Amino acid sequence: MNQTPVVAALQRSCGEDRTENLDAMLTMVEAALDDGATIVIPQELFQGIYFCQYERQEFFEWAVPAEDSPAIDAVVQLTTGREAVVPVSFYERAGATLFNSVAIVDSGRVLGIYRKTHIPDGPGYEEKFYFTPGDTGFRTWATSQGRLGVGICWDQWFPEAARAMALQGADLLAYPTAIGSEVGDLSELDSSDMWRRAMEGHAVCNHVPVVAANRVGSEDELTFYGSSFIVDHRGRDIITATRDEEQIIMAELDHRQAREDRAAWGIIRDRRPEHYGPLSSGAPEPNFG
Amino acid sequence: MNQTPVVAALQRSCGEDRTENLDAMLTMVEAALDDGATIVIPQELFQGIYFCQYERQEFFEWAVPAEDSPAIDAVVQLTTGREAVVPVSFYERAGATLFNSVAIVDSGRVLGIYRKTHIPDGPGYEEKFYFTPGDTGFRTWATSQGRLGVGICWDQWFPEAARAMALQGADLLAYPTAIGSEVGDLSELDSSDMWRRAMEGHAVCNHVPVVAANRVGSEDELTFYGSSFIVDHRGRDIITATRDEEQIIMAELDHRQAREDRAAWGIIRDRRPEHYGPLSSGAPEPNFG
Repeated sequence: MNQTPVVAALQRSCGEDRTENLDAMLTMVEAALDDGATIVIPQELFQGIYFCQYERQEFFEWAVPAEDSPAIDAVVQLTTGREAVVPVSFYERAGATLFNSVAIVDSGRVLGIYRKTHIPDGPGYEEKFYFTPGDTGFRTWATSQGRLGVGICWDQWFPEAARAMALQGADLLAYPTAIGSEVGDLSELDSSDMWRRAMEGHAVCNHVPVVAANRVGSEDELTFYGSSFIVDHRGRDIITATRDEEQIIMAELDHRQAREDRAAWGIIRDRRPEHYGPLSSGAPEPNFG
Repeated sequence: MNQTPVVAALQRSCGEDRTENLDAMLTMVEAALDDGATIVIPQELFQGIYFCQYERQEFFEWAVPAEDSPAIDAVVQLTTGREAVVPVSFYERAGATLFNSVAIVDSGRVLGIYRKTHIPDGPGYEEKFYFTPGDTGFRTWATSQGRLGVGICWDQWFPEAARAMALQGADLLAYPTAIGSEVGDLSELDSSDMWRRAMEGHAVCNHVPVVAANRVGSEDELTFYGSSFIVDHRGRDIITATRDEEQIIMAELDHRQAREDRAAWGIIRDRRPEHYGPLSSGAPEPNFG
């Protein structure tokens, strides 16, 4: 296992042509690999426009079984004969059920999939129309580049997801994402600082580095704010992309150092699981006194 | 219930004289109240030096039953006839068991206590020598100034604590604390940014404002780094104290606006408690394959 992998986040603007989107992303993956990256994170649903700003049934056709995904297949081909990990975001059809999923490809082999657990819903981000909340639970994989945990976009805001992956021994948390401007009541809000704060929190509270790969560009009512970033296990900035350019950002990690610092800081040691039951419970019952 | 309370964090340097420490902190509480604060947060264990940098049994004598605490009693007197909430940090003797506790005083009345759940242990912060891990679980109180959740120092690093309080409907999370420089292997580390990042994460991931009150000054091997702060429900800085001065910082909150923004952002709505079981479970069993 590589203890000092180089992680890359890919930030791209998507157009209407799905074949072109896929080809362009594959070109970026290859460029990152050629530059020495060993873990490459493409953004969420990179094959097309972010269709979830609409609620239109035509887009259900974009869902495919994992085995039939051209994106997964292409990344398997691309990484065959290389030591490299690429989580591939795709719209999954699993029998009759549709998920927002990621397939973890390691060196030409699919290790498994994760299905997005937390599904947002609101103006501009109507994901509950398209995706059943994931049924896999939080997963990590012992890859050639260390134990990798992957969350998808809205999962970014949930400390439970980050903690669950960290407890499995994740060396890195990766988040493919598609987030930008708001429409409706929140249209004045620029959430980019909030978005980053949430994940810096996961990094430091778990002492695990975090990488987020976001899209850029304007699509109809939304402008995606890029700002893809890599922070270390103390939440410190290593590298951050711009808000509006297509970019590849890369950073070398040090799993051994992070693991040692994590144990020294003592957060995992001092947890009190017997008091965390309320996190898995329902909402408080009414109390009529 | 006051929907727009003014919260104050008190930041002080402690000396050897315990009576003087208590008097000085009471003077600060009163000054904050006179300036319009309605929730006042003194720092952790403000009656004395931070004795946990040593492991000496003489300090066990500082523990007192809540009913006999001169600090709690003084704050009850001070707030009688006022609408104001003050969580009072103290070293608690409960029968034979010793805790690091806070008593929540609201307008001359003690609403209850919280016992620090997470106890640190390492060079300079030998708290496991002095305190049994708290047995109360995470608590919030419906005070005259909104529902208040209080964590104590090391609790700051645990998203589980913040989430548990937020789920109870906390309008504000308050953290009395005593943190500063490191000794031993980590002596080069300035954790102040990490410390703040952890709590900014709690703020934005729960959409609840957070206030932290830290001590300043040097005590033997440790220099406390102050930097007490108040952030809003999106983790945005409202006000931050310096690293080395005695200070009172204050900010007005807006519980109604925060509650509305919290619901609109949808984090609580989209939780998946059925997948959070691993947070309450033990560590992974060995797998001999």
